Amino acid sequence: MSKEKLMNVDEFQRQLDQSGFDVVVATSLHNVLYTSGAYIHTQVSIPDRLALTVLPKKGEDALLVCNIEESLSRDESWIKDVRSYVEFAQSPVSLLVEVLKEKGLADGRIGIEKRHLTAIYFEELVEALPKAKIGAGDKVFEHARSIKTPGEIERYREAGLATERAMLEAFQEARPGDTERAVLTAMKDKVALYGATGIDFAILAAGDHSYQAHPTARERPLEPGDLVRVDFGAVWDGYGSDVARMAVVGEPTDAQQDTYRKVWQVQRKAVEFMRPGVRGCDVFECCRQAYADFGIEYFGPHAGHGFGFAGHEVPMLQPFNKEEMRPNMLICIEPVILFKELGGFQVEDLILITEDGSEILTDYADSEELFVIQ
Amino acid sequence: MSKEKLMNVDEFQRQLDQSGFDVVVATSLHNVLYTSGAYIHTQVSIPDRLALTVLPKKGEDALLVCNIEESLSRDESWIKDVRSYVEFAQSPVSLLVEVLKEKGLADGRIGIEKRHLTAIYFEELVEALPKAKIGAGDKVFEHARSIKTPGEIERYREAGLATERAMLEAFQEARPGDTERAVLTAMKDKVALYGATGIDFAILAAGDHSYQAHPTARERPLEPGDLVRVDFGAVWDGYGSDVARMAVVGEPTDAQQDTYRKVWQVQRKAVEFMRPGVRGCDVFECCRQAYADFGIEYFGPHAGHGFGFAGHEVPMLQPFNKEEMRPNMLICIEPVILFKELGGFQVEDLILITEDGSEILTDYADSEELFVIQ
Repeated sequence: MSKEKLMNVDEFQRQLDQSGFDVVVATSLHNVLYTSGAYIHTQVSIPDRLALTVLPKKGEDALLVCNIEESLSRDESWIKDVRSYVEFAQSPVSLLVEVLKEKGLADGRIGIEKRHLTAIYFEELVEALPKAKIGAGDKVFEHARSIKTPGEIERYREAGLATERAMLEAFQEARPGDTERAVLTAMKDKVALYGATGIDFAILAAGDHSYQAHPTARERPLEPGDLVRVDFGAVWDGYGSDVARMAVVGEPTDAQQDTYRKVWQVQRKAVEFMRPGVRGCDVFECCRQAYADFGIEYFGPHAGHGFGFAGHEVPMLQPFNKEEMRPNMLICIEPVILFKELGGFQVEDLILITEDGSEILTDYADSEELFVIQ
Repeated sequence: MSKEKLMNVDEFQRQLDQSGFDVVVATSLHNVLYTSGAYIHTQVSIPDRLALTVLPKKGEDALLVCNIEESLSRDESWIKDVRSYVEFAQSPVSLLVEVLKEKGLADGRIGIEKRHLTAIYFEELVEALPKAKIGAGDKVFEHARSIKTPGEIERYREAGLATERAMLEAFQEARPGDTERAVLTAMKDKVALYGATGIDFAILAAGDHSYQAHPTARERPLEPGDLVRVDFGAVWDGYGSDVARMAVVGEPTDAQQDTYRKVWQVQRKAVEFMRPGVRGCDVFECCRQAYADFGIEYFGPHAGHGFGFAGHEVPMLQPFNKEEMRPNMLICIEPVILFKELGGFQVEDLILITEDGSEILTDYADSEELFVIQ
């Protein structure tokens, strides 16, 4: 797809203009992908090997990559000015400094990703550009990315639907005695069949691990009475999903079914509550209050998050976030509760903020009844 | 397994003593796992949600985590002093500062992971501890981790063997017309069957993408004449693999077979060359010279890397690295060459540095003949 389909160019320019920076520099996988179209996954597996986009307020963008990534970058990016450095022979920051000097920006106001760039590279940059005013440009990217384009919404919708379909089918095929890992592997297989290029994360918490937020699935057979909670994210060339679904092995106890129903109802209440103008903290409070009405103490730390490349994005649905929802934001709502004895409960769906409300993009978890593995 | 089986405690203490630091603080997934035994994978997917180990030269270690990860951390870690912070209500760095003050280390020499800690957290720490001497402690971890324990070597050996077995079997079952993605998915399935808990990275470069280092596999059928290069890393609860294997669809051309044979021979020459005392740059030069003898220009950026949690670790086999090999280091050797027309060539194996030489731990790629998919 083209730049305009996958990047909110107008919003980005508006954020950049408002930021006071002359240039912002992206270094994270997500912001480099967003601003260049190039998906350079070694940015995560080999974090020292920086890829950067240099995005001036006025003038041409540049993409800076390790020479080993140059051919892929030229193929994938809409940025025409691709430069490369030889790893170990030259620091990526020194190439960045060269490019900033060439563009006359070396003494200017430079916004970097302070939540991504490491201390070692940050110090190198500050030392090399003593006259520059280097600040945190993270919000320029975060806020631009939070308002999705129609092309992005379509990709995330498809990713979410394929993911929950894979999860549901794996639950349907699961039997008591299957191992935790086997059920999770079945989901991974199915989502790959539906086109996923990778798995971002795959949590299956069952039995005595159910109350842990993020355990690793084990070679342990599922037993009658087990709660099975799956929090799952697959990825399609960078565009991902984040869905949580639950099941129980054999008939649920009253406490299991009753608690699940409450979690489901709290989640739906939050969805109905979300609309433009509502703040992150308001949604958290909506969930806290709804749980309190059920006599359940809700501690957070958050009830959900904006969704995009990075998984947890603005707006966070956390008690201190005053940021308001805006149309075309994507939100994952997931008011998780974890009880040491009873276990952990979680339903997570992808929500689109519309002009006057919200819409659930994922839709298979349409029942208040716990899915029974039998 | 116990701490002593998975952490080189003596080497770590030696490195810490030599470093001049009173305490080192781990923040990366890899160093927290190494020094605590807790595998907190949200450290990667939610990077702002720090987990930290505080490791004083003298005195008790502490593990600091987000409250949502506390139960898992207590279950998995050998560190008894586990503290938690509530995300958004408290910064992880402020909890770190509290703990350092409590231990009387707040004005001391503090080694942090400057190659991991982000600029924003780094500045917060520096501001909160104006009297401390905060430096780069990365090398304490890197060097301790580079000398593997018998327990680690066993885990990586098993991971490597299972990975190459999965790759070979997927090649054996592949047929012309299968898509790139289908072949890669088959490898992922098989490695999950052999116990892998996740996939770290999975590159399949074929046909017109063959010359790219790290493309994403496509829904494109494999065609006669295609070179198929796979660089693959799976993970077993943090302990991973990194193996590369090649195939050709149908009978190879003379140029394909001839070039593959040269790459294979260069790699074997490097393996025979590696032993304690040999430096990273020497191995790179060995590969460069061996390629030059074949009339091939080798540009790097590296011929391989130490292997462990982080994928690319010390010692890097790059032209500027004077670090010497030591017994019980694990090395991935991979002198990759990429030709725009002919395509990319790569074989990667896991090597153990022994007392007087080296041993290939992965061993199925024992033939100079390109594997033929037919």
